[in-house]
Amino acid sequence: MFNFSAGPATLPLPVLKKAQEELVLYPGAGASVMEISHRSKAYDAIHAQAKQNIASLLDLTDAYQVMFLQGGASLQFSMIAMNFLAGQSADYIHTGSWASKAISEAKKHGEVKVAWNGKEENFVRVPRNDELKLDPNAAYVHFTSNETIQGVEYPVPPEVGGKPLFCDFSSSFLSGPVDVSKFSLIYAGAQKNVGPSGVVVVIVRKDLLERVPQGLPSMLDYRLMAENDSLYNTPPCFSVYIVGLVTSWLLEDMGGLEKVKAHNQKKAQLLYFAIDGSGGFYRGHAQKDSRSLMNVTFRLPEEALEKEFIGQATAQGLDGLKGHRSVGGCRASIYNAMPLEGCQALRDFMVEFQKKKG
Amino acid sequence: MFNFSAGPATLPLPVLKKAQEELVLYPGAGASVMEISHRSKAYDAIHAQAKQNIASLLDLTDAYQVMFLQGGASLQFSMIAMNFLAGQSADYIHTGSWASKAISEAKKHGEVKVAWNGKEENFVRVPRNDELKLDPNAAYVHFTSNETIQGVEYPVPPEVGGKPLFCDFSSSFLSGPVDVSKFSLIYAGAQKNVGPSGVVVVIVRKDLLERVPQGLPSMLDYRLMAENDSLYNTPPCFSVYIVGLVTSWLLEDMGGLEKVKAHNQKKAQLLYFAIDGSGGFYRGHAQKDSRSLMNVTFRLPEEALEKEFIGQATAQGLDGLKGHRSVGGCRASIYNAMPLEGCQALRDFMVEFQKKKG
Repeated sequence: MFNFSAGPATLPLPVLKKAQEELVLYPGAGASVMEISHRSKAYDAIHAQAKQNIASLLDLTDAYQVMFLQGGASLQFSMIAMNFLAGQSADYIHTGSWASKAISEAKKHGEVKVAWNGKEENFVRVPRNDELKLDPNAAYVHFTSNETIQGVEYPVPPEVGGKPLFCDFSSSFLSGPVDVSKFSLIYAGAQKNVGPSGVVVVIVRKDLLERVPQGLPSMLDYRLMAENDSLYNTPPCFSVYIVGLVTSWLLEDMGGLEKVKAHNQKKAQLLYFAIDGSGGFYRGHAQKDSRSLMNVTFRLPEEALEKEFIGQATAQGLDGLKGHRSVGGCRASIYNAMPLEGCQALRDFMVEFQKKKG
Repeated sequence: MFNFSAGPATLPLPVLKKAQEELVLYPGAGASVMEISHRSKAYDAIHAQAKQNIASLLDLTDAYQVMFLQGGASLQFSMIAMNFLAGQSADYIHTGSWASKAISEAKKHGEVKVAWNGKEENFVRVPRNDELKLDPNAAYVHFTSNETIQGVEYPVPPEVGGKPLFCDFSSSFLSGPVDVSKFSLIYAGAQKNVGPSGVVVVIVRKDLLERVPQGLPSMLDYRLMAENDSLYNTPPCFSVYIVGLVTSWLLEDMGGLEKVKAHNQKKAQLLYFAIDGSGGFYRGHAQKDSRSLMNVTFRLPEEALEKEFIGQATAQGLDGLKGHRSVGGCRASIYNAMPLEGCQALRDFMVEFQKKKG
């Protein structure tokens, strides 16, 4: 079976097998990873390895700190505003469902200025740099690297003229190389590309932490979390362990993010070629220059046909292709761990289905 | 090896074995629990089963809702205050390290009145009901069922005369029967008695949710979490799955909470008898009527001896006996999943050690 779910999503099979092998007895610990103290040497090594892998994959300098927090990107929407917006304004780029949620939460803590809004165009693209209305006094600029629901992705990050750039990278994190030096804060729920749900990876420029106000709830205070290396309280140890295994797989088995990106492009192209070559039977939601490598969103001529398409695909072991209810149609989520064979199988199915029904 | 860590702590071996068996392919899902959508039928069933198990174990009525949230008890310290304290005052009973943290966080959101403080006595006991100074206008009364660090536990919950009673049950949750009808809100980090870290179980009286103010950060809004059955965003699916397995084990293998409690009493008595019978060589930290069934804290005549005790115990496979740095000495955490054999082995070791060194 191939699992095209939007997240939680497919994990690499070697990772699952290793986790299975070590589940009852983690080597050297005499117990399961789920049973050992988060202050133990064995967990320390797991925690440090996961951080080191992410730093290696992204060529991080010492100016940045990697943290493992809880509550998903949804809690980050609030944390970034509580830590960096309070009493000021920030610019948010509105590209779809997830940007919208980030904006709603930020508004509870300060002024949000929408630097660009794709709503009238039905969220089919990201903005050009010259379309952004940036406020020189903004505390930061926030964007969403990939809109999981609309299937719209920035090919390169927006240029924001030296303002602190914050990014929700949840659904395209570690799917290719990123020049982190352009960013002040990156966050990503793990359950798409880097692990199971229950942990969100946050990468923050250390000098930004000086701006964190006093008196925040401890668990929502980035400075306190950073000072304690994400160990202020018990972290989600097993999820961090899996993130460590997935990032080791990205480094060692996949050979780093350049190769990961090439692989992801090859996979996405299979599907976009099928769409573009279908003579309009399949219609991509996103404009070509904003197409996501992670979530391929498309429609068929009629809703009834879409239902049939999804039903037959599921019966053939191509699972999770139903589009999000807010957009409709079909969506193939093809994160890092989706093998090329999965995309080939879906492409073949698309061609066959069109032959029968087109 | 027996693992006496204070948390994350020992899990039942049948649970670990089942999780291992199902790790790569969860029956009927065609994928790992870590890979399936939190909106899928397979996850729905896992989520519902875990809730149902907890409801069955505690004889919960429909007046209560069970939720699975993130951020541990530490984030609950803030959430309860943000949801129910703002602009009012609440009574907190101060019995040790965890009560202290709950108080510090609550103070950021409203007025905290300390109804009793065990600090001058070095946190060796819980208060009698007649010692509590309760404010008739308190929004709620908060207490800590078991102080993991001091090893001090309420044999029965305090009587607070009809005020909403809130409890941090983290380290004694499901260790014995509880009359939940006495409580308005219970929360418990899972990583002691009911699962791995990364999920906190919250049980709330539904009518209390009417008091939640508007405009809270979504992820910190109990009403929103309850309305969405803890699925407002992606929950920590794998941790919830393990909670489901552990609570099934408590119901089916252990036979329910009456039997669990009897088992826990038997285990704790082995160690407390060894302490009491040592002629003062081992000294329990807690007063007898406040002794914890979960965390047995004790000192030896000298710190050097304590070090030796812990070192020799570890070498014999009795791991995690070092007391918390804030209290010192030794601590044996013997949660639900610690087998009787573990306590017997520790008792035997204590007797032998005293023979050699006492």
